[in-house]
This record gives sequence, C-alpha cells and structure tokens, in this order.
Amino acid sequence: MNSEIKTQNPEPQPVAPNIVWHEGRITTEDRERVLGQRGCVLWFTGLSGSGKSTIARALEETLLNAGHAAYVLDGDNVRHGLNSDLDFSPASRKENIRRLGEVAALFADSGLITITAFISPYQEDRDRARQIVDAPAVADVDSGLRSQPSSLSSRPPRFFEVYVNTPLNVCESRDPKKLYAKARSGAIPNFTGISAPFEAPERPEIELLTHEDSIEACVNQMLRTLEDAGVLNAKGE
Amino acid sequence: MNSEIKTQNPEPQPVAPNIVWHEGRITTEDRERVLGQRGCVLWFTGLSGSGKSTIARALEETLLNAGHAAYVLDGDNVRHGLNSDLDFSPASRKENIRRLGEVAALFADSGLITITAFISPYQEDRDRARQIVDAPAVADVDSGLRSQPSSLSSRPPRFFEVYVNTPLNVCESRDPKKLYAKARSGAIPNFTGISAPFEAPERPEIELLTHEDSIEACVNQMLRTLEDAGVLNAKGE
Repeated sequence: MNSEIKTQNPEPQPVAPNIVWHEGRITTEDRERVLGQRGCVLWFTGLSGSGKSTIARALEETLLNAGHAAYVLDGDNVRHGLNSDLDFSPASRKENIRRLGEVAALFADSGLITITAFISPYQEDRDRARQIVDAPAVADVDSGLRSQPSSLSSRPPRFFEVYVNTPLNVCESRDPKKLYAKARSGAIPNFTGISAPFEAPERPEIELLTHEDSIEACVNQMLRTLEDAGVLNAKGE
Repeated sequence: MNSEIKTQNPEPQPVAPNIVWHEGRITTEDRERVLGQRGCVLWFTGLSGSGKSTIARALEETLLNAGHAAYVLDGDNVRHGLNSDLDFSPASRKENIRRLGEVAALFADSGLITITAFISPYQEDRDRARQIVDAPAVADVDSGLRSQPSSLSSRPPRFFEVYVNTPLNVCESRDPKKLYAKARSGAIPNFTGISAPFEAPERPEIELLTHEDSIEACVNQMLRTLEDAGVLNAKGE
C-alpha cells in the first residue's frame, strides 16, 4: 500500500531542504535533517543527590536556548506515568531501566537530543540501554527500504554514558530530600550507595565532577562532546 | 539546587526568540516555541487493514516536508521494543495501550506532533490515553514553577482521536498479511472485527474514509484540523 502514497505540500509553507522522498517510509536521518541535529541519548548515571536532574535540566535549557530540540526523561515525568506500575524490587528496577532504554531509543529515533536522569546503578542495565539505543531500528531492517543498507553499520553511536561522579560524602551532605538520613537509619532499605551497590561506569563517554566544577562548566563539557560527535553541527546543512 | 543554574550560550549560535528563562525548569511551551508548533497526539484507531499505518506515515512525511517535527509510534517500533514483554491477552492489550498513552504524552510534552497507529479497539482505553495526554504534566503541578498556574486549565487539548473508518469488508478484501483469512479459519483467535469487538469512537476529532477518499485527501483533512487547532501555525511566532 505504501506505493499509493502521493504526498504534496498541502499548504504553501517553506519546505525544508534535502528531504529525501521514500515511498511512505521516512528515516531517522530525514527527521534529523529537519531538526538540524542528530538524535542521541545522554544517559546520566550517579548517586542520589549527585546532581543528575539539575545538570540534565541545565543542559536541556542551554540546548533549547541555542535552538535545539531536547527533552529530559526523569523521575518527574516517568516514575508517575509510564513506570507507575513498578515498585523498587530488583525485577522492577531492571524493568524500569529496560523501558527507559526503549523510550530513550524512540526519542533518539525521532531526532531529539534525549537526556535520561536516573540512578541506574548497574553496568549491565546501562549496557543494555546502550545496545537498545545503538541498534538499528527494527523497521529499517525489516522494511529493507533504506537506499544504503551499509549505512546501518556505519551510523555513528547515539549513546553517551554520562557519569555524574559526585563522591558519596558530598551527596550525603547535600541530602535535599533527607533520603540518606532515612537510609542510614534503616527506614529505606536497599538504598544505592548505603545498602545497595552503585557500579561506576567502566568507560563513560563523559565524566562530570559536580563537586569541583560549576554547573555551567559541566554543561559546556557536554556540549563540547556533543559538538565533537557531530550531534549539534548538523544545523543548517 | 536549581537556583544555582546560570546558563549562557556556550557557542555563538542563533538564539531562538522568546525563550522564557525559568529557574532550571523549562516548560512544554518553551519547547514548543523552539519547534514552532504545539505538541499533540493524533491517536489513530481502526480495524486491521483500515490504513492506519499508511496514512500515519503519509502524514508524518507531509509534516516533515513542511519543516515540522513529527513521529509515528506503531507496531514497527513499539511492539518489538517497549512492549515486547506483552502478549495478546486482554490484560496485556490494556497495558499495551496504557504504555502507549504514557509514551505519547511524553512525546507531546517534548513538543512533537505524535502519531500513534494501533487498532486500540476499546473506547475505555482510548479515553484513558486521552486523559493521560491532556492531563497537566506532573512536574508542572508539583513544582509550582509555572508563572501562570491558571494556564494549566486553559491549555488547549492535545489529543485528537482519529477514526480510520474503513468498513470491515474493505479491510478484509485488502488483507495484506492474510490475517483475516487466518482469523476466519480460527487460526487467530480474538481477532478484532471477526471474533473480538471494535468499539467505534463516539466523538472522534477526525474521521477518515479511506475507501472513498485518497490518502492525500485524508492527510489534507488532518492538516486542516491541526491548523484550525493552532498546532501548526505557532511557526515563526
């Protein structure tokens, strides 16, 4: 049925340049051309109180101010919604991260600079998220409509592991929600860093030291990485 | 910690106009200003073979060609990913639609014109998706950072129910994947339209007649609705 599609500009609107017309199936690259950026995922990981959400929001704000399309996935918009059926059991935590990886992959596929801010303490779970995000889209493989199938393997990585490496004692001294106090008293069991492990990333693309650098410096560090990776400078191509 | 954020333009890039600076918490409206459109969800519903995916992809292509940011969620990118743990039992079908509603709400919140193409046969499930999408963001309510809380209630609806109203006999005669044949023979149980009910939308925002109108006409019909609702003409404001 796809061959029936005959699309024209229905309204005299400015047409984005360089749109490649496929037969009813546009690609990630087409969307990226319109947005002037590459879709990607910055996967923040770090202890509670390390500054993940604060830096994530600051990065989103800075990108937006420069005209980029960005979006943060964090506890505020995911915990009470998509993952509201999950508790804090090990199986649920794993499923929590799996779904996040899948949703982040969809956002990256849509062309957005996607920022996730969750503790995500296990390397295995983060590696799985990376695998999901960097896998070629099922639709691309299935449909065989891509004109250059070889570009699937040559597509640059979209996943950036961002280690917000704030020492435990600094996180505990910040303790904005008094969670560490409750964890120390035993009121919260299995608390990452206190009574549950945090596995530091082995080879993060970005490592932030929030106890030494300002938020602005952390944001600039990430922007440089994104620019070097060609995420930002697709603008106006 | 949000008050610590001091963001500047790290690179001499063109700054999008009218960005309102919040203290580390930007809103849906800020993202929409950058994208020049309102985030929304077009929730397609209709029988297997009704043309949902074909029209969804044609709409995405047309929007993209006009410089808009759009994304389709359908079986190709959701069934094998986010919802790969779900089967076709009644409980799983319900959960399938619940997650889709939540993910569509996130996409709309990011500012994208979001198109979902699933049979979604039950009015109750579609109503729930509408409720999720049109609810004010949890973050907005919790944080109290919005300068005009009253705008929460006055925010225009983002959810458009699109009824792809193709008669069963037309869908069955198309039967591109020979599913109806299998359903008639009993090889596929609980098949919508044959051995499971399809509840036609009671008050859809858009009703498409694919057996009478061309794909182009259907796309134009949706574009008119989106334009009338102010989704598209935020461009350049």
